[in-house]
Amino acid sequence: MSLKDLQDCIGSVNDVLCTLSLLVWDSRTMMPAGGTETRGAQIATMTRIARELLLSDATARALEGAQAAVTDLSADSPERRAVEQTAAAIAFHRRIPADLLERKAIQRVIANAAWIEARERSDFSLFEPHLKVTVDLAREYADVVGWQAHPYDAMIALYEPGETYASLQSLFGELRPGLKRILDTALERPRPRTDFLRRDFPEEAQRRVALSFAKAFGYDFERGRLDTTVHPFEISFTRQDVRITTRYRRNFLPPALFGAMHETGHGLYEQNVDPSYTRTALATDLIGLYAVGGTSFGAHESQSRLWENHVGRSQAFWQLHFPTLREAFPDALGDVSADDFHAAVNVATPSLIRTEADELTYDFHIMLRVDLEAALMAGDIAVHDIPAEWNRRMKAELGLDVPGDREGCLQDIHWSSGMIGSFCTYTIGNIMAAQLFKAASASDPGIEAGLTSGDYAPLRNWLTEHVCRHGRRFNRQELLVQATGRPLTVAPYLDYLSGKHHAPLSSAA
Amino acid sequence: MSLKDLQDCIGSVNDVLCTLSLLVWDSRTMMPAGGTETRGAQIATMTRIARELLLSDATARALEGAQAAVTDLSADSPERRAVEQTAAAIAFHRRIPADLLERKAIQRVIANAAWIEARERSDFSLFEPHLKVTVDLAREYADVVGWQAHPYDAMIALYEPGETYASLQSLFGELRPGLKRILDTALERPRPRTDFLRRDFPEEAQRRVALSFAKAFGYDFERGRLDTTVHPFEISFTRQDVRITTRYRRNFLPPALFGAMHETGHGLYEQNVDPSYTRTALATDLIGLYAVGGTSFGAHESQSRLWENHVGRSQAFWQLHFPTLREAFPDALGDVSADDFHAAVNVATPSLIRTEADELTYDFHIMLRVDLEAALMAGDIAVHDIPAEWNRRMKAELGLDVPGDREGCLQDIHWSSGMIGSFCTYTIGNIMAAQLFKAASASDPGIEAGLTSGDYAPLRNWLTEHVCRHGRRFNRQELLVQATGRPLTVAPYLDYLSGKHHAPLSSAA
Repeated sequence: MSLKDLQDCIGSVNDVLCTLSLLVWDSRTMMPAGGTETRGAQIATMTRIARELLLSDATARALEGAQAAVTDLSADSPERRAVEQTAAAIAFHRRIPADLLERKAIQRVIANAAWIEARERSDFSLFEPHLKVTVDLAREYADVVGWQAHPYDAMIALYEPGETYASLQSLFGELRPGLKRILDTALERPRPRTDFLRRDFPEEAQRRVALSFAKAFGYDFERGRLDTTVHPFEISFTRQDVRITTRYRRNFLPPALFGAMHETGHGLYEQNVDPSYTRTALATDLIGLYAVGGTSFGAHESQSRLWENHVGRSQAFWQLHFPTLREAFPDALGDVSADDFHAAVNVATPSLIRTEADELTYDFHIMLRVDLEAALMAGDIAVHDIPAEWNRRMKAELGLDVPGDREGCLQDIHWSSGMIGSFCTYTIGNIMAAQLFKAASASDPGIEAGLTSGDYAPLRNWLTEHVCRHGRRFNRQELLVQATGRPLTVAPYLDYLSGKHHAPLSSAA
Repeated sequence: MSLKDLQDCIGSVNDVLCTLSLLVWDSRTMMPAGGTETRGAQIATMTRIARELLLSDATARALEGAQAAVTDLSADSPERRAVEQTAAAIAFHRRIPADLLERKAIQRVIANAAWIEARERSDFSLFEPHLKVTVDLAREYADVVGWQAHPYDAMIALYEPGETYASLQSLFGELRPGLKRILDTALERPRPRTDFLRRDFPEEAQRRVALSFAKAFGYDFERGRLDTTVHPFEISFTRQDVRITTRYRRNFLPPALFGAMHETGHGLYEQNVDPSYTRTALATDLIGLYAVGGTSFGAHESQSRLWENHVGRSQAFWQLHFPTLREAFPDALGDVSADDFHAAVNVATPSLIRTEADELTYDFHIMLRVDLEAALMAGDIAVHDIPAEWNRRMKAELGLDVPGDREGCLQDIHWSSGMIGSFCTYTIGNIMAAQLFKAASASDPGIEAGLTSGDYAPLRNWLTEHVCRHGRRFNRQELLVQATGRPLTVAPYLDYLSGKHHAPLSSAA
């Protein structure tokens, strides 16, 4: 009975957080421009209410009863995990004073407006004073929630619990030279043609193809929908209603297709969480106050990257599906073969903008940001020196000259909206995707056969069994060891990229 | 300062209610079928939270301070009205025990499911026991919130404050014979052709025309959008985001066009509420817990009916716009003239289904329901006798035999969802629309000239000035006296219908 009381409380918190997510989804897909300001008020109120519900006396009382009720259960039983996660989240939020949250919320609005102007003018100095305040607030926040080795660790934990700046440095120490080696090889090889990617692709046909791929992967449209937006995302209001978005560029085909596959991967994670976890702590991020069934941002990204890259950019995929694509765009792709297309969507080219980076150079963008964020949090670098340091790194690692701040340190929205600590999850997702894909393929020959024949059920079922269904019951570290027998390991990722780019296999393989 | 505190509290309530409305809008336009059950939980939680916020100690404290702050203001100042309405709403909700709300919520779910099955089988006996419970709960509710002359008065007040069953009977006493006289005349006249309304009308063209009419009336798409749904409605999340919906029947043109005009009228009301009332009690129904700027359901219906009927079904409108329509449907309307079309969309024909009824017979459906609801609330009729009484009235007043309960007393969703008391607002809206239209036309010859030339700004501005901008500051009775110099009066409505159907003018004109 005590468990039931806590479940009712958390169920209400989940209802509020799902509703909050609907406010966000709507604002990015449907809302008329006039609604911006009042929508902001609605989002702020719902965020406050979610926190108040979680920190209410009723929830505290229910938690006490529930804690007593689960002491005899095994340490990893879903019920006990749910209770323990709730207790940890309540303790976490109790440490943060309401006035700090308010100052952060106000700063977000101010800094975001300043960033928009600074980016427009490509002038970091306009953003600099605001980023200073944002970093100061992040350091205050880190001190309040607590950290041990490095203040940045408190921020990383918001998105990827269990990781620290030290653990990331260790990962990057192996990743950076490995990627560099593969990239050098790739850049020496002859470049395939890519001209046809920038022809005329009517949006309606792009949408039809994107829908057909999402359906092929097993995304359930009875519990989802695909809409159009500026920056694609996936969002869910319980596993029963998981929505994905993509964008259509009339003269550039890849974003719509790979964007849709990427978000489909996210969507499959949410749609395949154990139904009994619906509206419980095991399908709610009670720390981040976000209605999500995936256990970490990195774990989530592993699913999107797996479907986008390991499936969607594979030779097998385009051997099978290129005819569909050519049928959709007979004029633009009439002189293109499946092999041409596969090669074109796998070209590696150092470039300035993270969101447009290819698979092989993407992580350099991440490592740069992670190191800068850590240095800012520790006070090892002044905000003023960000552009110089950014440009120096881009030159050193990707050989690129940054023409201006717009194409450099002003390109991401993250810092302007107070998000510090999230970038690492993209790279963790990449590494984890390769590790999972390798384990899945090794465990069942039916998976590879399915990828060749277009039957994605074996792979999807393996992922559901080993990742999705567990929701937030296990943390990412536990999940990965259970699924692959090893903690997060760089080698499978480097092997995968080596294979794709015909580079000699890494010695660590 | 004290006023500010109360405004903050009510602002949050409005945020929650706007969010609740978004949950509803989404469920009727966008939500995949799988989301139904968890969406129900989200709606229930948000409804509970809105009520709790309104009844919180913080709101009570803020109210006390605000009441002291407004005592010196004039009785009809916006600030004082907002405070008084908040006080009345809090007192109202305090009278209703939480367990009664819960029993009503549970009953809604059960009764609705039973109604769906009963309607499918056209068998009232399947719904009868559930309607009994619903009526008992309504009577309990009426006793709790309080009534004087008739228990039905408590239910009417939820939708049309100030009206009572006695006041409605007095209205109907004048309305019924007047309508009957006009209907008899209309039915004796030769019938125009209507065959072309049921030809092939591609949905996309219907949508284009509907959009163009909404735009012509002055609906602001920067603060709104038009979507597709099964049962058209208007809903808003502050005046900054007011959404309308319509439906498209491939083989029957009127619903899309007149549905869109109707909802545009509702939308114009909300879009033109005084901007300073945003997120205040003057744009929130704190009794009904509904984010709405219009002052009553009847007042709202007056705006939708005015634009739909007085503008959209007028000769002037089709003289002007029929060419657009014929251009959109050259095949279907090639042999039709503007006069043919105007005549066809104004034909009066007694029919069984309220939602499909024409202007002249619609109110008979309403009067029947109002009298039955009153009799149920007073215990003057047993639930068991509803079908017989329904069918008797349909025969007596519209001369129709009801073939089965599906086409009779099971046709409306209202009773199954616990709504008793709302039907009268449709007829009040009809009467009020005619009264307002007459006053507007009399006050400014530019209005009629505009209707002839397609300039709807003069009419829209008059309505904004006399109705919309006031939001909920004045009640419907005050509004009407200020706008027309008279309380609700049947004569202009009968005159309007007499003119349209070439019946002799009523002596009361």
